[in-house]
Amino acid sequence: MYSSLNTNGNAAAFETGPVSGRFAAVYSEVQNSRIDHALPLPSVLRNPFKVVEGPPSSAAGNPDEIAKLFPNVFGQPSAMLVPNEADSLRSDLKLKIGVVLSGGQAPGGHNVISGIFDYLQDRAKGSILYGFRGGPAGIMKCKYIELNADYIYPYRNQGGFDMICSGRDKIETPEQFKQAEETAVKLDLDGLVVIGGDDSNTNACLLAENFRGKNLKTRVIGCPKTIDGDLKCKEVPTSFGFDTACKIYAEMIGNVMIDARSTGKYYHFVRLMGRAASHITLECALQTHPNITIIGEEVAAKKQTLKNVTDYMVDVICKRAELGYNYGVILIPEGLIDFIPEVQQLIAELNEILAHDVVDEDGIWKKKLTNQSLKLFEFLPQAIQEQLMLERDPHGNVQVAKIETEKMLIQMVETELEKRKQEGYYKGHFKGQSHFFGYEGRCGLPTNFDASYCYALGYGAAALLHSGKTGLISSVGNLGAPVEEWTVGGTALTSLMDVERRHGKFKPVIKKAMVELEGAPFKKFASVREDWALKNCYISPGPIQFVGPSSNAVSHTLLLELGAQA
Amino acid sequence: MYSSLNTNGNAAAFETGPVSGRFAAVYSEVQNSRIDHALPLPSVLRNPFKVVEGPPSSAAGNPDEIAKLFPNVFGQPSAMLVPNEADSLRSDLKLKIGVVLSGGQAPGGHNVISGIFDYLQDRAKGSILYGFRGGPAGIMKCKYIELNADYIYPYRNQGGFDMICSGRDKIETPEQFKQAEETAVKLDLDGLVVIGGDDSNTNACLLAENFRGKNLKTRVIGCPKTIDGDLKCKEVPTSFGFDTACKIYAEMIGNVMIDARSTGKYYHFVRLMGRAASHITLECALQTHPNITIIGEEVAAKKQTLKNVTDYMVDVICKRAELGYNYGVILIPEGLIDFIPEVQQLIAELNEILAHDVVDEDGIWKKKLTNQSLKLFEFLPQAIQEQLMLERDPHGNVQVAKIETEKMLIQMVETELEKRKQEGYYKGHFKGQSHFFGYEGRCGLPTNFDASYCYALGYGAAALLHSGKTGLISSVGNLGAPVEEWTVGGTALTSLMDVERRHGKFKPVIKKAMVELEGAPFKKFASVREDWALKNCYISPGPIQFVGPSSNAVSHTLLLELGAQA
Repeated sequence: MYSSLNTNGNAAAFETGPVSGRFAAVYSEVQNSRIDHALPLPSVLRNPFKVVEGPPSSAAGNPDEIAKLFPNVFGQPSAMLVPNEADSLRSDLKLKIGVVLSGGQAPGGHNVISGIFDYLQDRAKGSILYGFRGGPAGIMKCKYIELNADYIYPYRNQGGFDMICSGRDKIETPEQFKQAEETAVKLDLDGLVVIGGDDSNTNACLLAENFRGKNLKTRVIGCPKTIDGDLKCKEVPTSFGFDTACKIYAEMIGNVMIDARSTGKYYHFVRLMGRAASHITLECALQTHPNITIIGEEVAAKKQTLKNVTDYMVDVICKRAELGYNYGVILIPEGLIDFIPEVQQLIAELNEILAHDVVDEDGIWKKKLTNQSLKLFEFLPQAIQEQLMLERDPHGNVQVAKIETEKMLIQMVETELEKRKQEGYYKGHFKGQSHFFGYEGRCGLPTNFDASYCYALGYGAAALLHSGKTGLISSVGNLGAPVEEWTVGGTALTSLMDVERRHGKFKPVIKKAMVELEGAPFKKFASVREDWALKNCYISPGPIQFVGPSSNAVSHTLLLELGAQA
Repeated sequence: MYSSLNTNGNAAAFETGPVSGRFAAVYSEVQNSRIDHALPLPSVLRNPFKVVEGPPSSAAGNPDEIAKLFPNVFGQPSAMLVPNEADSLRSDLKLKIGVVLSGGQAPGGHNVISGIFDYLQDRAKGSILYGFRGGPAGIMKCKYIELNADYIYPYRNQGGFDMICSGRDKIETPEQFKQAEETAVKLDLDGLVVIGGDDSNTNACLLAENFRGKNLKTRVIGCPKTIDGDLKCKEVPTSFGFDTACKIYAEMIGNVMIDARSTGKYYHFVRLMGRAASHITLECALQTHPNITIIGEEVAAKKQTLKNVTDYMVDVICKRAELGYNYGVILIPEGLIDFIPEVQQLIAELNEILAHDVVDEDGIWKKKLTNQSLKLFEFLPQAIQEQLMLERDPHGNVQVAKIETEKMLIQMVETELEKRKQEGYYKGHFKGQSHFFGYEGRCGLPTNFDASYCYALGYGAAALLHSGKTGLISSVGNLGAPVEEWTVGGTALTSLMDVERRHGKFKPVIKKAMVELEGAPFKKFASVREDWALKNCYISPGPIQFVGPSSNAVSHTLLLELGAQA
């Protein structure tokens, strides 16, 4: 069915037949070779197993409120798959399972789906797997495709979410829950796997609660997805996609470092994706050893101002100039601005003023700003001032996300260096080059780690559904060991939750896992960053390899966290 | 001497001892594995050889003028290394050779130097290799380092130019030639290898001419370096670095394509390095199959306007919207603006006006623009208008290079789509995402192709010097065949030259090799681009692999050009 034709000596083509999807797609040699990459499974999944349970669980915070919000699924014990003499689950059960991708892309999503599919083929033959199209909206509108071996094949170990695509809709209102129920009933679903980030997994748990409350048989299992790495806990050591995305960014950063050292005249300001948490920036720093790395959580903890951040950069740049280095590499998290309290304050004031007042050209409107905000506003480069005033979202709010932080910082550093030059403290020369690495990393070919991790997550999720579990997140552990020795199970989603008060109501949330300043990865970074600042300790990780050296490497963040736990 | 310590499980460290350079550098596993990657040599270089000569050469244009400018080296025959019963060159000759890197970085430069060094070790033991530091300025100021095995070792198969660094100075004036002579005499140089682009190789030939004219023994051999791929001819099928840089960019483009298809809501506008010629853009297009690719040479040949380019994009975007695709990927060469005659005209007029007139806020100054230029100016997005007026170089000129073409095009496309929407011709939705891929590709780890090609170029350059040749460019051919069968020789640099009249004088130049609209790579592209525009034929090449599938692939451009020649 799949023909592999060489075109131009570099690419091979295959067709997947009459189904839609990646039919007639032409694949590169590397893509093709990855399709047939044999995925190792943890040994517990390759042999007969049974599911054992731990003690009852609680919540990450406010367990009483969580218990009230989830009366049917709160307190569930963890489930762990352990070897058994014979399989404990009925292999003659024919399950109907749905799967949905939710939120932004992360490398490995296709492998979660492959894992679910293969589990059903291996252990519940005759089962059906539906892929809901375009994210949670696909559930609500009952837009789905029945996934079969031919359809799935070309997506194995491939990047992207395009097998069934994703979406950012949420199932929130009573009407939307009703729609989800209707789909579950219509398709006679035994289970649903929700592949997503913190919000989507909260949603998965609400669905589980709702289905059980309505006595529907449909069970729901979540899977931890996000390149940002901010969905994790003890039982879920990392979210999938983080490993691949960081390695792609680190490849680029390493290349830019060698360029900086070779040219000797540029400071490269690299903004990295990750709006809420700075895990990506930290991981890339640990992989590449840049001269300056800004971690949003530290900026927030130390209540730093934009001026503080600029001064820190300028101090390092001046010291490096004295050593003869007029070049360097600086990593900045996408969400930096969100971590700076004074910026939040300024933006709140601006939104208020812009909503109610006329902005006069003479700047009289500025008198409405508090002193601190006015000072900050005037400190900002003119282009950023204009951007804040002019670019507004449909609600009239300042679009913080549109600010190119790396360019703003280049301008602020330039201004400060000019000042120091005039004061005689700086004799170097400075040229900034800006970069933003984001979209390049979300759909790369998954690393061996992400490929195996996702496959195990999916295979495990199907096992949990097979054993009747609901409201759990698929949990694969012991990730520092060879795949063979990984543990597989599920963790109560409610145990990851706390409540937030919004509009006078309690809302359950899975708290984003932020960079812990007392955690091993940050402490490691903090212990060496001064060396990195002044010496040039650059490391160039090079392109991701699928065979040979480093092809099975695990992220520094994960290794350091596992090491600290051990 | 080299210790390999595992740190964090991912990186290994080594020290190179007391010499400067990459001492105490910590390398990634991939970097480390590449150091010891065994480089294949063409069989002619592994066995005894002799040098045979072809017929006398001419010039690419105006041979009479070139002959006058190069009385001592014009007309030299090509040299070809061929197998011989015994080595024809004296292995007891102890040579003193200098090497210099000139201009922008390109992956593989370190391997050219390794190749020269190894040749001297293998076939002229006791020879000395000097590396001039910081480009041609190092020759003029006699700033050099003596390269030995320990110093070179950590740079083998590594990206960057930091072994001796590069520079953009030129040896042009009589005083500068004098300085170069003094260095040649002081170091008693038998030869000099100049690794650079078109300008640097022209310079190399002028040096060769000058040295011979002055009866100095110092001979000069050039090496073709540039990621832009615009230094090539029949005997020099490609410049080094092009292969690696394009594969790095293509990896990113491929990832962005899968992202576009998965998300379904972005048009990614990717600007690619390559100011003069669009080879990089064309090669990346052949590797990845984007929906729209702009080739500067075609724009110039068809005398297209910015409006034409915008309309072409908008036409495709509208057609795709009708098919349900509100996403896509668009490749744009860095130098696009330079190819558009009307833009050149506008900028010339602006420079003139801005130099002599006051720019009034009411825009009366605009009346000084010709009609056509005024129309173009008003067609430009406001941000670009402001950039043209405000950002000037030290000479007061408009800084064309600073214009972010990809962002400009996004704005122009947005405006035109809005118009068509109001006219009822477009019902889709459009969101542009801009990217610039440049610095990421100049210092990557060289591909197997570039690693081997550069090593052969360097090894061959040393052989040419050993045999007393000067004024040639190292030429390695038959590149479609296995390395074993590659041919090695040298081509008269004057044969690549033409003259340009500047300030009333003839100046010799190696003409940049532009994308030929009648050449095989462009014709291949032109024959399939309509398919690529409307269907989604995306290919994701994935990260460069050093072993396994595709690790020895050759660029599409080279393969197509070789195929057309065959």
